[in-house]
Amino acid sequence: MERLKGSCIIGQSGGPTSVINASAQGCIEAALGSDAIDKVYGAAYGITGVLDDRLYDIGLEDPAELARLMYTPSAIFGSCRYRLADPMTDDTDCQRLLDVFQKYNVRYFFYIGGNDSMDTCSKISAFLSQNSYECRVMGIPKTIDNDLALTDHCPGYGSAAKYVAHTCMEVVLDARVYGAGSVTVLEVMGRNAGWLTAASALAKARGLGPDLIYLPEVPFDLADFIADVSRVHDRQRDVMVAVSEGIRDKNGTYISSYFSDTSKDRDAFGHARMGGLAGSLANFANAKIKAKVRGIELSLLQRCAAHMASRTDIDEAYMAGKAAFEAAEQGFTDKMLAFERGPGPEYSCRTALVDLVDVANQEKKIPREWINAAGNGLLEPFVEYAAPLIQGETGLECCAGLPRFANLRRIMTREV
Amino acid sequence: MERLKGSCIIGQSGGPTSVINASAQGCIEAALGSDAIDKVYGAAYGITGVLDDRLYDIGLEDPAELARLMYTPSAIFGSCRYRLADPMTDDTDCQRLLDVFQKYNVRYFFYIGGNDSMDTCSKISAFLSQNSYECRVMGIPKTIDNDLALTDHCPGYGSAAKYVAHTCMEVVLDARVYGAGSVTVLEVMGRNAGWLTAASALAKARGLGPDLIYLPEVPFDLADFIADVSRVHDRQRDVMVAVSEGIRDKNGTYISSYFSDTSKDRDAFGHARMGGLAGSLANFANAKIKAKVRGIELSLLQRCAAHMASRTDIDEAYMAGKAAFEAAEQGFTDKMLAFERGPGPEYSCRTALVDLVDVANQEKKIPREWINAAGNGLLEPFVEYAAPLIQGETGLECCAGLPRFANLRRIMTREV
Repeated sequence: MERLKGSCIIGQSGGPTSVINASAQGCIEAALGSDAIDKVYGAAYGITGVLDDRLYDIGLEDPAELARLMYTPSAIFGSCRYRLADPMTDDTDCQRLLDVFQKYNVRYFFYIGGNDSMDTCSKISAFLSQNSYECRVMGIPKTIDNDLALTDHCPGYGSAAKYVAHTCMEVVLDARVYGAGSVTVLEVMGRNAGWLTAASALAKARGLGPDLIYLPEVPFDLADFIADVSRVHDRQRDVMVAVSEGIRDKNGTYISSYFSDTSKDRDAFGHARMGGLAGSLANFANAKIKAKVRGIELSLLQRCAAHMASRTDIDEAYMAGKAAFEAAEQGFTDKMLAFERGPGPEYSCRTALVDLVDVANQEKKIPREWINAAGNGLLEPFVEYAAPLIQGETGLECCAGLPRFANLRRIMTREV
Repeated sequence: MERLKGSCIIGQSGGPTSVINASAQGCIEAALGSDAIDKVYGAAYGITGVLDDRLYDIGLEDPAELARLMYTPSAIFGSCRYRLADPMTDDTDCQRLLDVFQKYNVRYFFYIGGNDSMDTCSKISAFLSQNSYECRVMGIPKTIDNDLALTDHCPGYGSAAKYVAHTCMEVVLDARVYGAGSVTVLEVMGRNAGWLTAASALAKARGLGPDLIYLPEVPFDLADFIADVSRVHDRQRDVMVAVSEGIRDKNGTYISSYFSDTSKDRDAFGHARMGGLAGSLANFANAKIKAKVRGIELSLLQRCAAHMASRTDIDEAYMAGKAAFEAAEQGFTDKMLAFERGPGPEYSCRTALVDLVDVANQEKKIPREWINAAGNGLLEPFVEYAAPLIQGETGLECCAGLPRFANLRRIMTREV
């Protein structure tokens, strides 16, 4: 088969992670080293950068700075949450993409993102194919939520999981310091899948983790929550709870909505107030159990704490970007790069290719049998699954006590 | 002078830090190595442990575990916020302390804490002296707030400052990822002094810090805040703000109280709601400036993030504990161990002794001339002051991806 020659675009999409730039770096370095590739472009703010013809010329970057991408959090080219119009009903977006692809002779397109991004990839792939424009379209997985189907796990998850587990251990030590009884509620990201919150069980396995863990996979009941907290409080005074932001009751109503009636709930200036779930649950517990309560929301910190990235995650994220490029160069298209876990007790991870359409808009949840019967804790199979993903430390360079992140020039292909 | 022989008690008080255990370790190792000392005790939950006769026998601990204290956050013996009764009006507490000191022949007392703890030390010292009980009483400074008088800086501050600066750099990268405009408000601890919030200026000096920094040292005005944020937003779309939890208006009213009228402000269950200042200010900005807003409260994380402790801080905290013991052994009493910064451009730090009574209940604030005229940023002298304190990395041991903290046996001298 003759090699497809042309330019390549790499884009990043959705919420950033500690290692989404590692995947970009793997893909960039492979592309820059390939004689099939004329130019390597980075799309400014994901697919919107392609639509707007805002592309960075990555060949102009200093390789030493590119090498720092794997230790630099957030999305170096910017990200977006843009949902591409479905070309079946409105092909404006896809037609525009085709124009830009033709303008730059783009024959390779890599999109690093989650479920929605795989949907975007899938639409683009189908449209280009229908229009007989030859282009290899590859999705590279990325999400701290770890909820992509058909892959053992997702780049980004291991680092965020390590941050959650590590932080739990530190917070447990702090929260119990007065010995007077306390309820600490830690809120972790995850609207529909509890993988990241579940990572707190890794801390528990070390004896310094939450006593109770609530996930979106199990319907949440406030009365059960209070009973659980009371029981632990009676036994050991200090109670640590981890909750997913997306916990819901048996009717599917978000528990966070119980506490924030935005029609009524306004501050002194009349502005709607968004209630933090952690603080609300802590306050709720306080009304029933007399103890010092505190809600802690891990917020952005859990997805950008590159200083605590897992070496395993960094290396795998890089490998995903590199393998995606190599597969595309070999002729594969319309695929997402996935991870398969090797058999046997020793952890190993290899890449595989799955069809974009099978991944798009799917969500993988924690198997119910990995959660205890009461729905407030994780079982050993989860710990065995997650533990290998948080191994090893970052190589982030520090300079005078603070990190030295990649500093790209980001030169546009044309003035905009 | 004949050496005073007897037992020693070490207690920890107030909010814990990443390095309060390093000071304990410095003091413990010096005491265990001294032939003036019979027994080394740790007070459970600070001074309340002495009052309750709850003392750990530290001689029974494994030295290898004690050696891990310098990398272990929180207060290993527990802490308290107990305010000792003033013996001038009620000597119950002090009389009880004297009984326990006599029971165990305690001739050395070390208390690691902040302003209130130095007040406690000072009262104990005066009472024992008036009752002709010979005992060396030494305060060892500790506070992330860095607000103790008569010391260049306080153990605990450097590590928390490093965490704040480092976190700012990561959050700035994340918050600007969509390029669509955002206001991110980071809330940092500090009721009366802005030292810790000011540490965000170290991140700004690296080009990845807050655009605006508000401290308790300068009266805060909501209209000025909105004008500041609007100006930055117009210029660069993404705005990052750091605020001290303790900012107040020109009348001394906490800004946080503007947003939480606990008489009216109740959730759907009728519970009073405590508003997070960061979220409230972000929502307030949102009503005036149309941008994605987010409030992030660093909460306990900023004082227990031992993984990001400053090596300088760890070493100095250890040195403070050791030097306090040595000074007591040499005959000094009624003193707080303080730090003096050496002259010249190269940073150096040596210990000094100051009178407890001069430190007790004092607060050191940031000099106004280190803050810019508009009161929303720090000037170079602050950066020069703070930068040396965050240097160097921790030696925290990791085991299978998670930290290995000290694991003490904590055996009580008697069953309680």
